[in-house]
Amino acid sequence: MDTVPSELWHTLDGKDSAVPPAWADHPRATQKSPVLAAAAIKLLRTPTALAQLSPEESACIVSFMRLTGFAPGATILREGDQQETGYMLLVLTGEVSVQTTDGGTHEPVVISVLGPGNVIGAMGLLDGAPRSATCVASSRIEAAVLSRGALDQLIAQHPHVGAKLMVALCQRVSDQLRATGQQIGMYVQLMQTMQAEIDALKQQLRDDRRD
Amino acid sequence: MDTVPSELWHTLDGKDSAVPPAWADHPRATQKSPVLAAAAIKLLRTPTALAQLSPEESACIVSFMRLTGFAPGATILREGDQQETGYMLLVLTGEVSVQTTDGGTHEPVVISVLGPGNVIGAMGLLDGAPRSATCVASSRIEAAVLSRGALDQLIAQHPHVGAKLMVALCQRVSDQLRATGQQIGMYVQLMQTMQAEIDALKQQLRDDRRD
Repeated sequence: MDTVPSELWHTLDGKDSAVPPAWADHPRATQKSPVLAAAAIKLLRTPTALAQLSPEESACIVSFMRLTGFAPGATILREGDQQETGYMLLVLTGEVSVQTTDGGTHEPVVISVLGPGNVIGAMGLLDGAPRSATCVASSRIEAAVLSRGALDQLIAQHPHVGAKLMVALCQRVSDQLRATGQQIGMYVQLMQTMQAEIDALKQQLRDDRRD
Repeated sequence: MDTVPSELWHTLDGKDSAVPPAWADHPRATQKSPVLAAAAIKLLRTPTALAQLSPEESACIVSFMRLTGFAPGATILREGDQQETGYMLLVLTGEVSVQTTDGGTHEPVVISVLGPGNVIGAMGLLDGAPRSATCVASSRIEAAVLSRGALDQLIAQHPHVGAKLMVALCQRVSDQLRATGQQIGMYVQLMQTMQAEIDALKQQLRDDRRD
């Protein structure tokens, strides 16, 4: 597999300021790297990405994507970032560590590790809201980027494909919402158990002190 | 405001079997009830529904929706339901109580109360997966239904409008995902506090017994 041109690699780490990448300056996936483009077309159709697309629809979407790369340790997306968040990435090579400091912990907690075929940042693409998690390149990453501007062009020029992409993306976000719903259910149960333990310990303390 | 024809009212409660409504037998919103259709067109554009649509796009979508009604106490969607889940409802009149028994509680917990302009069941429309919560009519409900078949027709005949509807729906689901993410963060914090309390109580017990 050929690689992304060296001048387009991102080496931003957490200490750098969050300079948004200028996606328009990146090569279109289909123009500069046919091998990576072919990988993107295939990967966009894996169950981890958006399996409901036909090969032709997938190729149409990839023609609107741009290539980028990240050095190991580089921050791909930063939790809470509010600038230029309107894009998603399809991971082509390497592994991405998804981390959060949500919940008030000081050390970031690794939520998941994502590999080729995974899509990251889909929610930002849709509404440009602050990033909900930090994504760090665990290894050398090559990725295809779809920006909001490119999505709007795709919908304008190929509305059927745009609509199908949106159905697929929406199903992905729904799956994540179902998973977090189950997680919340689990936590509520766990908290009930902990509360029962607290009540029992308090009772023991009272009993002990009465004796 | 005129009402949904009486033969199309649903009175299903939790004790009935989950007979799926045959949406194709319901009147198209624009044909049988122009007043309700006008309300639907307006409500689809409220911030609680899918504000990004133009009045023309909203009217186009409503022309693919069908009207239905639910008596007070009727179950509109049932948590875990796997049959014929491929539709969403836009609430036109009345209030819907969203409940779950997730988390192992025996009594259903009310998650939220939704009124006119709210969309329920969007996730089922997309992937037909089991319903994640129970929705009960708190009062007399009139609603406009969009089924998966109608969505497919909408995308085939008006792909631009279909794509825009999907972007709007996807933004809604993303908002919900962000909210549950914050909820999880809050619960993790709460569990850390509870664990600290458990540890402190255990230490007190040990100290007391040592004396």
